[in-house]
Amino acid sequence: MVIILKKDAPKQDVDKLWHDIETQNIKIHEIIGSHTTIWGLIGDTHKIDMEAIEAREIVETVQRVQEPYKEVNRKFHPEDTVVTVGDTKIGGGNVTVIAGPCSIETEEQIIDTCLQVKAAGANMLRGGAFKPRTSPYSFQGLGDEGLRLFLKAKKATGLPIVTELMSLDHIDLFNDVDIIQVGARNMQNFEMLKELGKCNKPILLKRGLANTIEELLMSAEYIIAGGNTDIILCERGIRTFETQTRNTLDLSAIPVIKTLSHLPILVDPSHATGKYELVEPMSMAAVAAGTDGLIIEVHNNPQKALCDGAQSLTPKRFEKCMEKCAQIGNVMGKRVGTL
Amino acid sequence: MVIILKKDAPKQDVDKLWHDIETQNIKIHEIIGSHTTIWGLIGDTHKIDMEAIEAREIVETVQRVQEPYKEVNRKFHPEDTVVTVGDTKIGGGNVTVIAGPCSIETEEQIIDTCLQVKAAGANMLRGGAFKPRTSPYSFQGLGDEGLRLFLKAKKATGLPIVTELMSLDHIDLFNDVDIIQVGARNMQNFEMLKELGKCNKPILLKRGLANTIEELLMSAEYIIAGGNTDIILCERGIRTFETQTRNTLDLSAIPVIKTLSHLPILVDPSHATGKYELVEPMSMAAVAAGTDGLIIEVHNNPQKALCDGAQSLTPKRFEKCMEKCAQIGNVMGKRVGTL
Amino acid sequence: MVIILKKDAPKQDVDKLWHDIETQNIKIHEIIGSHTTIWGLIGDTHKIDMEAIEAREIVETVQRVQEPYKEVNRKFHPEDTVVTVGDTKIGGGNVTVIAGPCSIETEEQIIDTCLQVKAAGANMLRGGAFKPRTSPYSFQGLGDEGLRLFLKAKKATGLPIVTELMSLDHIDLFNDVDIIQVGARNMQNFEMLKELGKCNKPILLKRGLANTIEELLMSAEYIIAGGNTDIILCERGIRTFETQTRNTLDLSAIPVIKTLSHLPILVDPSHATGKYELVEPMSMAAVAAGTDGLIIEVHNNPQKALCDGAQSLTPKRFEKCMEKCAQIGNVMGKRVGTL
Amino acid sequence: MVIILKKDAPKQDVDKLWHDIETQNIKIHEIIGSHTTIWGLIGDTHKIDMEAIEAREIVETVQRVQEPYKEVNRKFHPEDTVVTVGDTKIGGGNVTVIAGPCSIETEEQIIDTCLQVKAAGANMLRGGAFKPRTSPYSFQGLGDEGLRLFLKAKKATGLPIVTELMSLDHIDLFNDVDIIQVGARNMQNFEMLKELGKCNKPILLKRGLANTIEELLMSAEYIIAGGNTDIILCERGIRTFETQTRNTLDLSAIPVIKTLSHLPILVDPSHATGKYELVEPMSMAAVAAGTDGLIIEVHNNPQKALCDGAQSLTPKRFEKCMEKCAQIGNVMGKRVGTL
Repeated sequence: MVIILKKDAPKQDVDKLWHDIETQNIKIHEIIGSHTTIWGLIGDTHKIDMEAIEAREIVETVQRVQEPYKEVNRKFHPEDTVVTVGDTKIGGGNVTVIAGPCSIETEEQIIDTCLQVKAAGANMLRGGAFKPRTSPYSFQGLGDEGLRLFLKAKKATGLPIVTELMSLDHIDLFNDVDIIQVGARNMQNFEMLKELGKCNKPILLKRGLANTIEELLMSAEYIIAGGNTDIILCERGIRTFETQTRNTLDLSAIPVIKTLSHLPILVDPSHATGKYELVEPMSMAAVAAGTDGLIIEVHNNPQKALCDGAQSLTPKRFEKCMEKCAQIGNVMGKRVGTL
Repeated sequence: MVIILKKDAPKQDVDKLWHDIETQNIKIHEIIGSHTTIWGLIGDTHKIDMEAIEAREIVETVQRVQEPYKEVNRKFHPEDTVVTVGDTKIGGGNVTVIAGPCSIETEEQIIDTCLQVKAAGANMLRGGAFKPRTSPYSFQGLGDEGLRLFLKAKKATGLPIVTELMSLDHIDLFNDVDIIQVGARNMQNFEMLKELGKCNKPILLKRGLANTIEELLMSAEYIIAGGNTDIILCERGIRTFETQTRNTLDLSAIPVIKTLSHLPILVDPSHATGKYELVEPMSMAAVAAGTDGLIIEVHNNPQKALCDGAQSLTPKRFEKCMEKCAQIGNVMGKRVGTL
Repeated sequence: MVIILKKDAPKQDVDKLWHDIETQNIKIHEIIGSHTTIWGLIGDTHKIDMEAIEAREIVETVQRVQEPYKEVNRKFHPEDTVVTVGDTKIGGGNVTVIAGPCSIETEEQIIDTCLQVKAAGANMLRGGAFKPRTSPYSFQGLGDEGLRLFLKAKKATGLPIVTELMSLDHIDLFNDVDIIQVGARNMQNFEMLKELGKCNKPILLKRGLANTIEELLMSAEYIIAGGNTDIILCERGIRTFETQTRNTLDLSAIPVIKTLSHLPILVDPSHATGKYELVEPMSMAAVAAGTDGLIIEVHNNPQKALCDGAQSLTPKRFEKCMEKCAQIGNVMGKRVGTL
Repeated sequence: MVIILKKDAPKQDVDKLWHDIETQNIKIHEIIGSHTTIWGLIGDTHKIDMEAIEAREIVETVQRVQEPYKEVNRKFHPEDTVVTVGDTKIGGGNVTVIAGPCSIETEEQIIDTCLQVKAAGANMLRGGAFKPRTSPYSFQGLGDEGLRLFLKAKKATGLPIVTELMSLDHIDLFNDVDIIQVGARNMQNFEMLKELGKCNKPILLKRGLANTIEELLMSAEYIIAGGNTDIILCERGIRTFETQTRNTLDLSAIPVIKTLSHLPILVDPSHATGKYELVEPMSMAAVAAGTDGLIIEVHNNPQKALCDGAQSLTPKRFEKCMEKCAQIGNVMGKRVGTL
């Protein structure tokens, strides 16, 4: 940590700050320039409260020189985390594909869609039982009945399932769910993150619409600090001024995160773009950028979908998308789905 | 709702869409131009799923012509909502001031700070018992012990208290809390909003960092749809590329919201800017822009604050801020706090 | 400047960087922590190229500890710059009001509007002869004929005029213009800034839609480095995801800029919001936030305006806006316009 | 165009607006709902000024239903534009690679770098003679001397050259330049665009940091409206809140633009990310997303570069990047550079 002091700071206040820091077992190196005094702090500065220091009138700015996350930091854990669910692995070299409808609607819809995505090469199934909808008047998901139908699809396909947890109150319903998804809007629901840190299931943590990569890693740090190391990150678009796409897919987040952290990172091109015709090119681009996996919305009848139809692929389009991604994966030396 | 069809759309698909819409009790007016066909839909289009229509290949775009919110819409409820808590009103003409520390730390700290903000003219007290912190290693608030201390401050001052609910699991602890705050990160925690729609306490709903005004109103619609009409909105800065301030305070949201909705709107200059020296000018600007209230962080010793010290006013600075705001309030024909 | 080195950087490369920096007459203080090595650089680090240092593989990050601007920095020039045009001053205590139509359309329109804004208390006139329009099919301004008509309005009112320079090729036409405006889209037109640094007229420099406050100050530094110290800054809204307003007016930029720089700062609520009904509340808020002036669009017949009618006030509304702002100015101890 | 009228709009004002529109040779279809009246306008609505209509008090909103650009619109010109420079084509199927240093520094540097990028498979050379720099104290480019050296590199390699025009005053120096680049900061320098519309050289138009895809296309429309149809678009990152990368590369812009327009679109991963280690993965992702070309910064000694060293590849790294991109290109059925 580096502290820049204001010019002409009263000696008495400076001495007090020096003393307050040193009593926290931190060593200070003072560098005096013509216009600025810099303090370099050495020791375990994680304990230091940056804001409390910035609150002092004698302080101009405080700058971190180390990342604020530890357990998810690749510096301290150089090897890739690989999350294993049944026979499927996420991270460590291949492109895992999770596919299925935005929301679970009927038994026929979910089983039919899931069988088709399996046939096209998906490793896992996605489907929403509890749906976060902007409007209270929109379809909110089938809830526990949806989970029940999703378990039938799990049985019918033999594939693991991923679904979103919207409230800790529902967690008992998630016993047979294989991966618990934390949606973009809950990325900083810290009470939820703390609880999931204590659970023994893998967590799929989606980046919030207005959250930096560093904040995403800090939210993962919440889960890992609780003891759960099976964390999968997911880039799903950030909010910008551009209106042609629902959000702006930040594919550079993939190589950035792979440098900063050992956790696997997936990409959700469906939610990021909001348009089915952009899913294939963005999936291919994500594979080329080094993603560990893809989450793709597929619906056996998008025009009848109760939510997010505009961004859902038909099974036929998904099949084509998988083939194209597999070819890119081939270049990367990675298997895409089960292809 | 207006639907723009693609040129050369197959007649069969067009007929099918027409039929699917009409069976929802909507009348379609078709306007045929040289390059475009426009359908104007008349009827209760709230039932219509825009995305399902956009999922049709024959559709170029779908545009709403009406706001997607009803109960919070000023068009249908022209009179200002006034939320009453004890003797204090929020909305309807004055500037209600809520002040107190970011987090409750000790009995001495919370009672001393609250007595001082009362003396300076605050109408209500704020203080955090459960704190949303980006880092799991930061102080997380005193929890129920914090609430207990806050109730002592309520008793000592006789002022109503506002505090943040971070999880529905804690709601039983909030019986004696006067206003429940939904933080920016929970603005789209829809399960929480649904529950709060059923409770009989006023809700202070903060705008999310990446949420539009329309989305803020849709989240309020969730609460009101549940039956709870005592909703107070709060602008607290949105996320932009600017780094001099923690967030960018969007003061134009005040007159915009007052046109669109009948709900009262407050401003939180402390969280928006993250810097104590900006709180006074932004508070004054908010009053001049027509705000119904202010939420201001005050700490009796900001340099010792366990969180957000950099943005907290000393009681002395708060007193001066109140005096300045009262002068602006005077111009607006509004009382600021109890001054 | 602070340099953070990567762990396990080869000694040879570290030595080379040390040597390369020291030969630039900079002293390095090395602080060695357990995970990080920090170099604090002392001396005139303006000469140092941060990016060239970051290009070295042994470097993790480089952080500035001083502002990159010098001449516009309040640290080195504590007193307010006051720009004088005829009898009118900008900066140094009052709220200067510049008003007039978006574009100059006819002699009757410009003279009538200007006489009315003068009567309502404006200090200066604004009007566009060369107009930056997103579409090549929109009205582009009357050009030199527009300037000619504007000079008639100057004569008729006796007030100084401000108008935008869109190309250096036009500069000879600006001899009788009192203040040259650099529009938001030209804030980083560095060739233009260099030329204007050599001219002897005050420059009104508008903040770009996607530019930080620091970049705005760096662009002002370009002008001042050329010798022209008469610079007036202008906040006019930044681009965000919010769509209710054309841009998001960043009023916190006012106190931030007044701390960082000695230059006067104005606010343009018309372009920032794009809606006439928001101009009055945002003007009042700007005055309360400490602005040195306002630029407001007024048109004697907004519905017939050839551009930006939606954001233009009628002379009657402008009069009311001025009265309200004058009342706020009264609280601030500032005169607003000639009221 | 669709106009939504306010409820209870006075009949007299409504009649006046109706008349004003009809006299512009536009037909209005009125649709009356319970809460809203919608007017659908049919005819050449390009002539209609949306803002003037919005300025009427009786109007709630005005919405376009057609794109505001015509000549660059794929709807009216379905076939891909292919820009030809010597033997090289941009657009129409392959991935054209333009490479070279950020700025031209010495004869040895530019010729050596250019020979190496040619050897690695580049089709064209890039290099800056006039450099847009945020700080007036940074290296501003060698100017005409830089152009002179660049022409030597052109001769030495036999490859076409691309360089940025920063001011129309310099255009006479660009006679032997093959493609004129309009930088991101000049994307809405409309006077420059108008002039370039009259010149007979291809224009490389970079997207501004805060500009939408629609605005990029409108700027291209300025050039094409002047008669110059040889336009190449370039995505180079937009400004967001994320700080790990200099800008956020918006790769979804590629398929979006290819749908909306017939113009070729390139990607500049160097400026978008600002970090050399991200150039290879983002180049590969761009090829997979369907880009028509890449612009990549290469410097024979990045640590000595006078600008943007941190984002420049060494010739060796560029060679590896080209090989990887060529493999992705192979999947796409496209040749990358001369490989």
